[in-house]
Order: sequence, then structure tokens, then C-alpha cells
Amino acid sequence: MDKPQIGIIMGSKSDLPIMQQAADILTKFEIPFELTVVSAHRTPERMFTYAKEARANGLRVIIAGAGGAAHLPGMIASLTSLPVIGVPIKSSNSIDGWDSVLSILQMPGGVPVATVALDGAKNAGILAAQILGSFNPEIAAKLDAYKTSLTADVMDSVRDMEKGE
Amino acid sequence: MDKPQIGIIMGSKSDLPIMQQAADILTKFEIPFELTVVSAHRTPERMFTYAKEARANGLRVIIAGAGGAAHLPGMIASLTSLPVIGVPIKSSNSIDGWDSVLSILQMPGGVPVATVALDGAKNAGILAAQILGSFNPEIAAKLDAYKTSLTADVMDSVRDMEKGE
Amino acid sequence: MDKPQIGIIMGSKSDLPIMQQAADILTKFEIPFELTVVSAHRTPERMFTYAKEARANGLRVIIAGAGGAAHLPGMIASLTSLPVIGVPIKSSNSIDGWDSVLSILQMPGGVPVATVALDGAKNAGILAAQILGSFNPEIAAKLDAYKTSLTADVMDSVRDMEKGE
Amino acid sequence: MDKPQIGIIMGSKSDLPIMQQAADILTKFEIPFELTVVSAHRTPERMFTYAKEARANGLRVIIAGAGGAAHLPGMIASLTSLPVIGVPIKSSNSIDGWDSVLSILQMPGGVPVATVALDGAKNAGILAAQILGSFNPEIAAKLDAYKTSLTADVMDSVRDMEKGE
Amino acid sequence: MDKPQIGIIMGSKSDLPIMQQAADILTKFEIPFELTVVSAHRTPERMFTYAKEARANGLRVIIAGAGGAAHLPGMIASLTSLPVIGVPIKSSNSIDGWDSVLSILQMPGGVPVATVALDGAKNAGILAAQILGSFNPEIAAKLDAYKTSLTADVMDSVRDMEKGE
Amino acid sequence: MDKPQIGIIMGSKSDLPIMQQAADILTKFEIPFELTVVSAHRTPERMFTYAKEARANGLRVIIAGAGGAAHLPGMIASLTSLPVIGVPIKSSNSIDGWDSVLSILQMPGGVPVATVALDGAKNAGILAAQILGSFNPEIAAKLDAYKTSLTADVMDSVRDMEKGE
Amino acid sequence: MDKPQIGIIMGSKSDLPIMQQAADILTKFEIPFELTVVSAHRTPERMFTYAKEARANGLRVIIAGAGGAAHLPGMIASLTSLPVIGVPIKSSNSIDGWDSVLSILQMPGGVPVATVALDGAKNAGILAAQILGSFNPEIAAKLDAYKTSLTADVMDSVRDMEKGE
Amino acid sequence: MDKPQIGIIMGSKSDLPIMQQAADILTKFEIPFELTVVSAHRTPERMFTYAKEARANGLRVIIAGAGGAAHLPGMIASLTSLPVIGVPIKSSNSIDGWDSVLSILQMPGGVPVATVALDGAKNAGILAAQILGSFNPEIAAKLDAYKTSLTADVMDSVRDMEKGE
Repeated sequence: MDKPQIGIIMGSKSDLPIMQQAADILTKFEIPFELTVVSAHRTPERMFTYAKEARANGLRVIIAGAGGAAHLPGMIASLTSLPVIGVPIKSSNSIDGWDSVLSILQMPGGVPVATVALDGAKNAGILAAQILGSFNPEIAAKLDAYKTSLTADVMDSVRDMEKGE
Repeated sequence: MDKPQIGIIMGSKSDLPIMQQAADILTKFEIPFELTVVSAHRTPERMFTYAKEARANGLRVIIAGAGGAAHLPGMIASLTSLPVIGVPIKSSNSIDGWDSVLSILQMPGGVPVATVALDGAKNAGILAAQILGSFNPEIAAKLDAYKTSLTADVMDSVRDMEKGE
Repeated sequence: MDKPQIGIIMGSKSDLPIMQQAADILTKFEIPFELTVVSAHRTPERMFTYAKEARANGLRVIIAGAGGAAHLPGMIASLTSLPVIGVPIKSSNSIDGWDSVLSILQMPGGVPVATVALDGAKNAGILAAQILGSFNPEIAAKLDAYKTSLTADVMDSVRDMEKGE
Repeated sequence: MDKPQIGIIMGSKSDLPIMQQAADILTKFEIPFELTVVSAHRTPERMFTYAKEARANGLRVIIAGAGGAAHLPGMIASLTSLPVIGVPIKSSNSIDGWDSVLSILQMPGGVPVATVALDGAKNAGILAAQILGSFNPEIAAKLDAYKTSLTADVMDSVRDMEKGE
Repeated sequence: MDKPQIGIIMGSKSDLPIMQQAADILTKFEIPFELTVVSAHRTPERMFTYAKEARANGLRVIIAGAGGAAHLPGMIASLTSLPVIGVPIKSSNSIDGWDSVLSILQMPGGVPVATVALDGAKNAGILAAQILGSFNPEIAAKLDAYKTSLTADVMDSVRDMEKGE
Repeated sequence: MDKPQIGIIMGSKSDLPIMQQAADILTKFEIPFELTVVSAHRTPERMFTYAKEARANGLRVIIAGAGGAAHLPGMIASLTSLPVIGVPIKSSNSIDGWDSVLSILQMPGGVPVATVALDGAKNAGILAAQILGSFNPEIAAKLDAYKTSLTADVMDSVRDMEKGE
Repeated sequence: MDKPQIGIIMGSKSDLPIMQQAADILTKFEIPFELTVVSAHRTPERMFTYAKEARANGLRVIIAGAGGAAHLPGMIASLTSLPVIGVPIKSSNSIDGWDSVLSILQMPGGVPVATVALDGAKNAGILAAQILGSFNPEIAAKLDAYKTSLTADVMDSVRDMEKGE
Repeated sequence: MDKPQIGIIMGSKSDLPIMQQAADILTKFEIPFELTVVSAHRTPERMFTYAKEARANGLRVIIAGAGGAAHLPGMIASLTSLPVIGVPIKSSNSIDGWDSVLSILQMPGGVPVATVALDGAKNAGILAAQILGSFNPEIAAKLDAYKTSLTADVMDSVRDMEKGE
């Protein structure tokens, strides 16, 4: 397998069912990635090392998912100048996801996190592919084909609904 | 000036004081950009054309800012596979910015928008630079220097505060 | 069947259980309608065409339902001067419906969407009928009869409760 | 002046600065309207009479604005089968407008209110015109011209911004 | 049975499981009450009559429960000068109860509604008893006894917990 | 002056501009009251004594206003079986008043607080008068006259607006 | 068993499943505690006595959990100068926990409550241990060991995930 | 001056007007403290060092204030087992303070932050004093005296209000 270009990290193994969706879409686009657990609050040193070495390790984008007071995406962004995509996760002890969303989105000037929708790991994967696609025409072509497939799916629904009436 | 690599668009000229911050930081990083008004609700055809032609026009990232029921970033993202950064703007008739944030952030699976903080146009500019920096070591170096300058600013505050005591 | 006067559209086939309620009440009022999927984010061209041709196709009102960052009603309203009724849908990945409500309701000056309650497709159908009823006494009479039936239902509850005591 | 086709009512004279915007846009479209105060909580009998006689008085649409626990639009809708447009108003003692929005929007099944944005009286006027325009080609033409003017305004901004650079 | 002193009304029969709790506590305090459905939106005339005749019918307090855009308590309060207790109900189509709470609580100056907690019909019944108890020492004594029983229940929990350890 | 029948208390002297409105309306209705500061958090013993002795002191209703984590109304209600009216106050360090509203409104079963709108001290005064008016025909008559004056005020606005056109 | 140093109290026995988590973690750290029910609204005198005697009884920290309009932590804090840790509990009749959080967190200047996350009783226990650990090196060592175990747990997840791929 | 026992840190110098209130109250209690800027996002290494060395440097409690996506308190808590008090700050680009509150309060199990009210730095100082006071009778006595002074202030208000009438 090729050297990972995307790092997918999550604050807890319990976030895997959501974060796997980022991995799946990257697999579909044939973009090599790595997937692991990095906890801001339980493994802060590991988080430091991961972020500091990310660019040298060949990563071009980091996708970080976390729930509750979700500090992982923002702290990663403070430690690397790679683009960081944040996935707010509606964990069991979250207040309807608002805590995750706001603690990822509302970063101060100077340190952006590209935030996607609550539990939106699939979109995080697509966004990472789009970032690569800005410089890689092959990936851009795959993204355009994917867009066409989304349209086709809707048109299937249209036909299904017509038949159903 | 070089061909723009970043397109900065906004739903209304009244968004300019916020969106100018994206332009300023790109100027600082010497990244060529274009800046204009594209309204999803008042110039939908223009929006279509803008998005459809963006990649062919050489753009690598689009930054779109809008307030209230902010459809511009998401609609642009539906029309191009370039990465789209959304800036929620707290306009005068917004409900404390919640409407802008949620109508940009909560995109459905398949069509991501990289959302930054409310009125966070400066971070949108930095994020766009980071995306370019993933493939351009010169920009990456500038981003690292910028990060160093942020640290230096804090250390100045630290010294100021020590003197003040 | 007569030419449709009301267009009922939805962003995804998964919205059908809610949006069918608009269809059912229009059926009850014997108002011809059409029902289909039009996605702002996955079929933007289809959305453009649908809206642009709606008046020429004989539609008098468009009912558009969508969840999450719900751009369909507002974008339709930007593309036609027909009255557009928006139905916010509490989809599975919505933040309690607030995203759908705010991204439909908070339209900027110039481009209104007539928003009904969260998941309020039935009321969207009634509202469409009321719009027709402003010019069609037969429909107005049906609406008054419907109002009377609502009152009768409550009076049945009153009697049930009296008996139950 | 012609017989009013639109009734604009508000819960308090203090709502006039907002509600006047509905009147102004109807004046622009040359649609005859009436404008008065009807309070659900301070003049309930007047509200009853107003709603009950509205259709017979020639009204085709009622626009009702109110703030706080805003019951006027919904109560009018319970008393007439004309289409009722509700304008939530962010009054001084409102909780950021949430109270007005929710008490107008969240009507139960059977009794719709076409809700527009917070303080969105201008859009209420346009929506009323759109309803008339569904049956009146002259008004429809004016609405299309208005849409064209909105586009032209944006294009002016585009040119201004180009010159400014 | 004695003439009802408390009127318990609700907007829909589906509110009965909640509103019955007000009836049960009044039964416990041996305060005669009546219980029925009065819908602001489906039986506005009935609501008018109910409120207008309430004092003459011997009622001293009205308890009104409703969900969503809950207009019943406020409209009753606009039509009578009896004290009105409002019970916000978290109905199935409510936005987490916020709509019910705000549309009952945020009444304008001049027309109060004594609002209790979401689904707090039991407390509405106790509050009605407290109002009567301000003038009726026998009811006041029952309320004090009830307070004592609440304390006793906690002390039972204390002992249970001690034993459990 | 007659013995106070209503106790108006507030958590801080800074709440007086709001709470004075309760006093003013009671003065208008010629209902004797007392007005003082009782802080749940700074004078808990005083609060205990105030509540415990209230009924014996001749009070029939207690109006308690507080902001932020507003415990005064609920604690008073835990200490007396008199009806307690709570006034949430939007103090300077409040989160838009939500904290005051929720910490007064959401009392547990058994211990009601009759909550009025944010900063709604005037309505608290009227509600207290309504409670007395349930047993005192003279006060009831004053309340009905007050209601009539509210209607007259609206009718004045109606005439003003007619003249203004 | 040693004399309790931590008092864990809760407003209702139904809070025990949450509050037991504070007890469990203190047991793990071998810190003696007591656990009981103290209700602000149903046993106010007991609450007074508990708080007033806490320091004399040897307690060094009080952990108080409550739901809805949660007054227990703040009232305890008004009655003792011991540090008080508040645990907001998402009880069945809570509005998504916002009421509990705000009525514990938003204490006025002068009377702090150390608030932890919604249902965060485990963290309340750890925080109490940390307070003791500031003066007790043995407890500090246990806390550091606990931190190490948290890191080890994450590293186990990392290895599990590596194997799973 | 004695060796600092409390560390007061803030994410930005602009937080000083709020955080100074913590310093002022500690000065009043004659508790030695240090005050500086430590930014999670701009000086992450400094943050690491500060937290890791805090206990060895003699600190017993850390007070950390930050606004927006406020990661400083939680990250400090992940790096030391000292008690950490978090002060959410309503900075200019905050969404009404909700972002600061939730990103400090909602820490995951294992890593508590003792959160105080929005902008509640004064209470953070008092809480730090209370923690010391659990082991230091002199500080406990000062805290009790402070509590007495709060009561006296209220009683002054009571007298002022009596005179004013």
C-alpha cells in the first residue's frame, strides 16, 4: 500500500463507527490513509508528536474526530500547518452535539479547523480528497465521477417515485 | 499579478468588511486571489457559472461567505468538486449567527463545506493557504513562519504583563 | 387527472414519509399536484430547470421539503417568483431540527420562503390549498368545511372525556 | 384607492417600523392593502371580528406581525381559511427573537401560518404579492421585474468592487 | 360533587396523560375541578366562551396545557382576569419543548400566564391549590401536610441508602 | 397603610429597576405590599426566615425576582406553601436570560413556581392581583377595568395609525 | 472506615446511578466519603444543617448532584465556605440538560460552584481527589498513576485498531 | 512575596480585564499567585511546560480562562493532576459565550475541569481560595469573614431600600 497521505485520528475508539466512514470514502477514491486513536486529553504527548511529525511523515491533510469538549482537532491545528478537518461527534454524554460542534468550529484567528457537519466523517473524507484533487487531476476526475453518481442516485429515486404512483 | 488561485466570494457587498480579512491574509502570504460578490438568492445563474468554471479558471479553493439562511457555500460546493470553505457571517438580521453557522455547516453526505468560525474570514484565508501549502513547500514555509509569529506575539504579551506587575 | 397546480418536491427520497402528508391533504381537497425528488446539492441543474419552468408548467405553488442545511426551498425561491412553501425536516443527522428550520426560515430580504413547522408537510399542503382558495371559492368552501371538521373532532374528544369520567 | 386585498396587522403600534416594510413593498407593487393594529391579547374580540370578516371584506391574504409570545398570526389562522403570513418580531423583551419565531412557526397540524424570517416584514409583503401573482399575470410580471432588479443591484456591487481594487 | 373551582383544559386529547396529573393532585387535595378539551386553534369560539364565562361559572383558577405553538394559556388569559396557569407540553412535533415553553412564558406586559415546568401539570395542580390555600386555611393545612410528606419521602430514601451501603 | 398582602423580594438591589414594576402595578390596584432584598446565596438564613414567617405575617403571595442561577424563587417555594411568583431577570452576567428562566421555571414535581416572562415583573404584579381577585370582587373589578384600559390603548393606536395615513 | 473527607449528596434517590460514579472513583482512590440524599426543595432544613456542619464534621469537599432547576449545589455553596462541586444531571423532565447545567454553573459573584460536565459525576470524584491531592502527596501519586492508566488504555485501543486492520 | 500557590493563566492578553478579577480576590485573601498568558493554540509547547512543571513549582491550583473554542483549561487538565478551574470568557467573536462554556465544561470522563460561570473569574479566585481553605484554617477563616461581608452588603441594601420608601 502507498504511503498514507491522509491521517484519520479520533479521540476514542468509540468514535470508530463514525470515523470509519471517512476511511471508507478514501478507500473508494483509492487515496492511501492511516487510521488511529489519538486522545488530546489522555495522550497529549502522543498528540504533540503526531501533529509535529505529520508533514514530515508525508501526510497532506489530517482528519480529526472528537465528541463533547472536543479539543483534538484544534490542538492538532495548533501544532501543524497542514490543513486539519474537524469532525464533531455526537457522543453519548454530549449535549445534543452542540458542545462538539462549538469546541471544534469556533477556533480563534490564526488557527483554522475545517469543520464538517455533526457526525459528518464521510464529508471529511470527501473534503480531504477535494484538497488533494486541487493538485491531482486523477483524483479530481474521480470526484467529478462521484458527483455524477450522486446525481444518478437522485434520478433513480425520481424514477422509483414515478413508478410508485 | 498572477492568475488567482483562490476565489473569495460573498453573498452581499455588506459582507466585505468581514471577507476582506481573508483577502488580507492571502495578500500577506503572496497568494493571488480574486474577490467578488456572488449571491445565491439574487444571482443564481452567476453562481452556477462561477462554480462550474472555477476549476477551469485556475482556482484551487473557493472561500464563500454569507449570512442568515446562508446557501452560497453549500450551493457552490454542489456545483464544483473544488474544496469550498464557508464563512458564516453574523449579519444584522441573523439570529445571533446560529442561522448562518447551521446552514453552512450541516451539509448532507456527499457535499462537504469546510466551515470556519462565525465571522472567521481570516481563518478561511489561512486554511486556503494551508491547502495550497500541502503541495507548495514555499507556502508551507510561510505558514510555519506565521505560526512562529503568533507564538512571538504571545511571548510579547507575557513580557508586557510581567513588566506591568 | 388534471394538470398539477402544486409541485411537491423533496431533497431526498427519505423525506417521502413526511412529504406524503402534503400530498394526502391535497388529494383530500381534490387539488392536482405532482410529487418528485429534486436535490439542491446533488441535482442542482434539475433544480434550476424545475424552478425556472414551474410557472410555465402551470404550477401555482411549490412545496419544498428538506433537512439539515436545507437549501432547496430557498434556492427554488431564488429561481421563480411563484410562492414557495418550505418544510423543515428533522432528518437523522440534523441537530434537533434547528438546522433545517433556520436554513429555510431566515431568507434574506427579497426572496421569501413561506416556512411551516418542523415536519409540518400537512400544513404545507393546507397552506397551498389556502393560496388557491383565495381565488377559487370552491376550494375556499372545502377549507371551511375542513375547519369545521377540526372543530367537530375536538368536540368528539370533549364528549369522550366526559364519558370517561 | 382600490379595495384592500392584503390586510397587514400587528400586535402593537411599536411593531410599525418593522411592519411598514410590508406596506412599502406592496405600495411598490401597486397592490392595495390596509394596515392596522390588532392585538390578540389586548383586543381579542377585535381579532375575532377581523379574521372572521376578512374574506368577505375582500382580503386575499393577511400579514400578521407580533413579538414575544406571538399568538396573533396563529389565532388569525384559526379563525379564517385565508392564507396567513406570520412575521416574528424581535421586540425589546424578546429572548433574542426565539420566542416570536417558535410561537408563530410551530403551529399544529390543520392550521398553518406561512412564517417568514425574524423581522422579515418586507419578505411577507413580497410573499403576499407572489400569492396574488399566482393568479394575476400583471403582478407576476412585476415580481419578475423585481427579481431582475435584485440581480442588477448585485451586479452593481460587483462593478463597484472591481473599481475599488 | 361540589361545583368545580379549578378548570383544567388542554389543547388536544393527546395531552391528557400529562394533564391528568393536575387532576390527580387536586383530587388528593379534595378540590373540585372540571377537565376538558378546549383548542385555541380548532375551537376558538369554544375557547372564547369558556374563558369569558369562567368566573361566573365559579372557577377561581384555570389550568391550561398545550404543546408546540401553544396559544391556549395566553389566549385564555387575554379573555379573563382569573389567574391562568400554563403547562407547556413536549408534544411529538415540538422542538424539544422550547416552542411550548416560550409561547406560554413570554406573554406581553398586561396579560400574565403563571407558567410551570415543561410537562409540569402536577405542579400546576399544586399551584392552583396554593392559590386557593391563600384564602382557605383548610387547603393551606393540606398543603403543609403535603410538604411534610415530601420531606418524609426523602428521609425514607436517606434510610434506604444507608441500609444499602 | 394596610398590612402587606404581597411580598416582593429580589436577589440584589440591582434588580430594583425591574422589580419596581411589580410594585407600581400593585400600587395602581391599591393592594398593600412590601418590597425588600432577600438573597438566596448571600443571606440564606434571612431567606429561610422570610419564607417560613410569610403566611403568619399576612402575606398571600410572594413575588421573587432573580437573575443568573436564580435560586431565590424556588427556594422560597420550598419553604412556604404560599403561591410564589418567579421573575427571571436578565442580569449583566446572564447568558441572554436563559439561565434565569430555566433555573426558575424547571422546578421539580411538588414545589411549583409560577414563572412569568423574562424581566416580566409587571406581569408578576398583575398575577398577584389576579390571585387576590379570585376571592376579592373589588380587586376582580379593578382587573377587569384594567383589561378594558388595555383594549382602549390599542384602539387609540388604531385611530392614531388611521390618522397617520 | 476512616472519617469521610468528601460528602456526596444528591437531590433525589433517582440520581444515584449517576452519583454512584463519584463514589466508585473515590473508592478506587481509597478516599473515605459519605453518600446520601439531601433535597434543596423537599428537605431545606436538612440541607441547611448538612452544609453548616460540613466543615466541623471533617468534610473537605462537597459533591452535589441535581437535575432540572438544580438549586442544591448553589445553596450548599451559600451555606459553607468549603469547595462545592456541582454535577448537573439530565433527569427525565429536564430540557436536554440545559436547565441543570445553567442553574448550577451560572452562580453570582461571591458564591462559586465548581461545575463539571452533564452527568459528569465521575469527574466530580476525580476533582475532589485532585483537591485533596494538592496537599496530600500520596493521593497526588494515585492521580498520576490514574492518568498513566488512561494513557495506557488509549494505547491499547491503538494496538487493537492496528490489529483490526 | 511568597512563592505563588495559584497560577492564573489566560489564552490572550485581551482576557486580562476579566482574569484580573481572580487576581484581585486572591490579593484580598493574601494568597500568593502568578498571572500570565499561556495560549493553547499559539504557544502549545509553553502550555505543555507550564502544566507539566506546575506542581513542582509549588502551585496547588491552576485557574485558566479562555474564550471561543476554549481549549486551554481542558488541555492543562490533561497535563497535570492539579485541580484546574476553567473560566469561560465571552470574547468578541464568541457565539454569546456558549462556545466557551461548552468547550470548557463538557470534558470527558477522567479529566475534570472545575468550571465557573461565564466571565466568572472572581468566583474562580474564591474557589481556589476555598480549595486552599480546606487545609488551611487561616484561609478558611478569611472565607467565612468574606461570606459575612456579603451578608452585610445585602443588609445594607435592605436598609437603603427601607429608607428610600
